[in-house]
Amino acid sequence: MTTEPAFIDQLRSIATDPAARGLADDAAVLTVGKQALVFTKDMLAEGVHFLPDDPPCDVAWKLVAVNVSDLAAKGATPLACLTGHTLTGDAAWDSAFVKGLQEALDHYSMMLIGGDTISAPAGTARVLSLTAIGLPSVPVPPPRAGALASDGLFVTGTIGDGWAGLQLLQDGRTAPQSLIAAYRRPQARIADGCALAQVAHAMMDVSDGLLIDAARMASASGLAVRIDLAKVPLSADFAATFGADQAAALCAATGGDDYQLLFAADSEAHLPVAACRVGGFGEGSGLTISWNGMPVDLPKKLGWQHG
Amino acid sequence: MTTEPAFIDQLRSIATDPAARGLADDAAVLTVGKQALVFTKDMLAEGVHFLPDDPPCDVAWKLVAVNVSDLAAKGATPLACLTGHTLTGDAAWDSAFVKGLQEALDHYSMMLIGGDTISAPAGTARVLSLTAIGLPSVPVPPPRAGALASDGLFVTGTIGDGWAGLQLLQDGRTAPQSLIAAYRRPQARIADGCALAQVAHAMMDVSDGLLIDAARMASASGLAVRIDLAKVPLSADFAATFGADQAAALCAATGGDDYQLLFAADSEAHLPVAACRVGGFGEGSGLTISWNGMPVDLPKKLGWQHG
Repeated sequence: MTTEPAFIDQLRSIATDPAARGLADDAAVLTVGKQALVFTKDMLAEGVHFLPDDPPCDVAWKLVAVNVSDLAAKGATPLACLTGHTLTGDAAWDSAFVKGLQEALDHYSMMLIGGDTISAPAGTARVLSLTAIGLPSVPVPPPRAGALASDGLFVTGTIGDGWAGLQLLQDGRTAPQSLIAAYRRPQARIADGCALAQVAHAMMDVSDGLLIDAARMASASGLAVRIDLAKVPLSADFAATFGADQAAALCAATGGDDYQLLFAADSEAHLPVAACRVGGFGEGSGLTISWNGMPVDLPKKLGWQHG
Repeated sequence: MTTEPAFIDQLRSIATDPAARGLADDAAVLTVGKQALVFTKDMLAEGVHFLPDDPPCDVAWKLVAVNVSDLAAKGATPLACLTGHTLTGDAAWDSAFVKGLQEALDHYSMMLIGGDTISAPAGTARVLSLTAIGLPSVPVPPPRAGALASDGLFVTGTIGDGWAGLQLLQDGRTAPQSLIAAYRRPQARIADGCALAQVAHAMMDVSDGLLIDAARMASASGLAVRIDLAKVPLSADFAATFGADQAAALCAATGGDDYQLLFAADSEAHLPVAACRVGGFGEGSGLTISWNGMPVDLPKKLGWQHG
């Protein structure tokens, strides 16, 4: 079967315009006339990216938030979007989805300007998509590939909360509201992204997991990256439920669904936004991790690895 | 279950910006800074919009062509696109799809700048989407809703060839190459769309069927529309296979998959592009049809009616 990376390699061979950024970035940056625009398109499939019994208004929220998070990672503010929706015969689900869509679009000040709706063949899992259009706040949105060997690696907010919320929901355990919200209603960091775009040499959002996303940034930048798991910022609710030891930090750093901003910047730079320095770059390639400076073996899975 | 019109009504209530054109047009027209852009997003689902044994390179072609056709209907030229692709485990299919995608993008001079690829749950029908971005050739792209009561109704090219190709393929009959090509490799009429945008008061592409699309244009414009079936332009290959009588013309006018341009213009206007006058608008509402001026009852199905 085709894996996602193999298929994207094939697409990459025809996506040769610089606007595509080699299909290796969170978003495309296209300049039309004198107007630069940022474009992203993310899909959510039922059973893969959301649970069949997740509240439909939360699924809509997440569809918007994951796309807006890609815009935020390029220092862009949301402007407009187009939806792609498959109807599968459940009117209540679809109505609740539209309600959640409206809430999310209002929250992120994004206009719905078009899209397509199709009736899916019976038995089909829902496949939902959004194409989001954003306005960059800087002339050249920070790429994924711009880290320097002397840069530190920073992340906003806390890591692991979305993963924790999903685990607790799947296990049927009582979960702190903050963790469920992190899974179901992630917050895209638009203002932070715009501020950080001024100083970040490379930036992306943490969607698949801190470790795998950091490894991708390093690979795109032609560098090695190191992360100290003890520096990974954990929330109080996460630590109260899963602990804050090395094993817990490793779960947080590989869980994904964070939608925090991961960026490379001068270690001495004044950051306009609160962020934790979790590691740094260097010459070479690959990812190494440690716990308070002591080397730690890489886990088998660095995060959500597509296909 | 939710029908597509009912769901789109719900979306319409939140798509209030003029750029959305009430979700009742072929495409959105968004002005950013001083730059007007046209956006459209069309999906194709396996088993609904294409046959499981259709050649994948033709499916890719069609995905591009139906979107570019929407741009053409707004007098816009294609600029860039983002894809949405579900992998279902058939590497040969996906590779052939990419080959067809490249052919179509080269043909229409459109850049691939991004998108998303997901691995679909087992048993899922393929759901493919494209978001296309176009540059309008006129300051205000012709809406669907702009017909005047004194306007004639015109259509480019010939009608029914795509429908005919599909019928012959489904029946396992030998089909003239032109009809198969019309079904599998529709041609979006970009140059015609740009030229006609100068004179058309309303314009759309014929995707669901001449009758239903004309009825939609009339409804959007708050007018009645009449079509003389005897004036519907049929190709020589269509006529040789299905005849050219009233029944054949009715099949052609309700079959859909034409991707010709349907437009309202002053009956006396000089048209910059060859087109047939198939009818005209008037005060009132609804669609009436005739055969050489003699009234004909409306068929039960005016075309491809979603949901």
